[in-house]
Amino acid sequence: MPIRYPNGQPYSRSPKQGQAKKPLPADTYSGRGMTLEQDIDEANLYYLSQQRAVVHKKPTPVQIVKVDYPKRSAAVIREAYFKQASTTDYNGVYRGAYIDFEAKETKNKTSFPLKNIHPHQVDHMREVSKHGGICFVLIRFFQSAEVFLLDAKHLIDYYDNQDVRKSIKKTEIERLGHQVKTGLHPPIDYLRTLDAVYFNGDAKERT
Amino acid sequence: MPIRYPNGQPYSRSPKQGQAKKPLPADTYSGRGMTLEQDIDEANLYYLSQQRAVVHKKPTPVQIVKVDYPKRSAAVIREAYFKQASTTDYNGVYRGAYIDFEAKETKNKTSFPLKNIHPHQVDHMREVSKHGGICFVLIRFFQSAEVFLLDAKHLIDYYDNQDVRKSIKKTEIERLGHQVKTGLHPPIDYLRTLDAVYFNGDAKERT
Repeated sequence: MPIRYPNGQPYSRSPKQGQAKKPLPADTYSGRGMTLEQDIDEANLYYLSQQRAVVHKKPTPVQIVKVDYPKRSAAVIREAYFKQASTTDYNGVYRGAYIDFEAKETKNKTSFPLKNIHPHQVDHMREVSKHGGICFVLIRFFQSAEVFLLDAKHLIDYYDNQDVRKSIKKTEIERLGHQVKTGLHPPIDYLRTLDAVYFNGDAKERT
Repeated sequence: MPIRYPNGQPYSRSPKQGQAKKPLPADTYSGRGMTLEQDIDEANLYYLSQQRAVVHKKPTPVQIVKVDYPKRSAAVIREAYFKQASTTDYNGVYRGAYIDFEAKETKNKTSFPLKNIHPHQVDHMREVSKHGGICFVLIRFFQSAEVFLLDAKHLIDYYDNQDVRKSIKKTEIERLGHQVKTGLHPPIDYLRTLDAVYFNGDAKERT
């Protein structure tokens, strides 16, 4: 006999417990410890609580096809599909500036494969950079747990030259990018890196 | 006999045709002509194509509970729930500045009911304003088709004084806000209003 709530609704596990996840693209890490996404969400919560910045992850875009409206309970989506994101995952405001970024993790030890980035996201980064936004990608190398901030202009440059090479060498990311301090609170202190890279007076990346 | 694709999958209407919509809150207009959301999406597409600004609507947040992975076709979300948005619906970058807004329509002729705005959204607006973002609400009065831009500081002020009054009189919106030009391309020219209100040299609202 199925277990039922007092109102007659059958018992089911709460959404939080049984939460499904979008399948991750190949070559991206997930499933053990904290994912890069979780670490960045935690950093963003920390920054918000400390009144440092307002940065949120955008919800996963889904195409909703069928919705049930059961009596006396919340609407249930019964058929929906994952959509390709047309922008990056994170944006917000820091020190008055618009910031916009994507976060990617790779198990590859020596390079970052460009297939991790979608064409739409690169187009979005081009537009954001044009309009004076601070735009970058956070790359975590899973094996070493190192995180780098790479300005969008470098990513776009490599992306547009994939006929030459379909990945960015880690040594190039070390040279062109900036290592991000990791720790406990916040797990990934990317605002500290932004301070050094984009707000240091000579504003070397904001060209 | 059900119609099938050559790969054996049963034929079903494409997501675009059968698209379901989140039920709209009471006192919000939908169902005839273009919704406010559609008009703003169109304006944003226009601005993007004209390289004026990069502004996107955030996807509707859903809590995904169950996903099927049928062979040889896309993952299907079989159980999901609408979540309360924790931010406003729109944000982006314009003339280097972070802009962030919510859009609401009312059938009420003489006032804007504050129940249209959620507490989380007001908190988000407070944070954005603190960090130097341009934050506002676009309000359309359905009957007159007039659209007004009201800076977040005024909305927050009324929101915090709901013991006095649970809505903002239209005459107050006319006095404190700014009417937005409507037309064909774009349907709602809110960037023109931003130019006048936030980028006019004396920058009267950016305090």
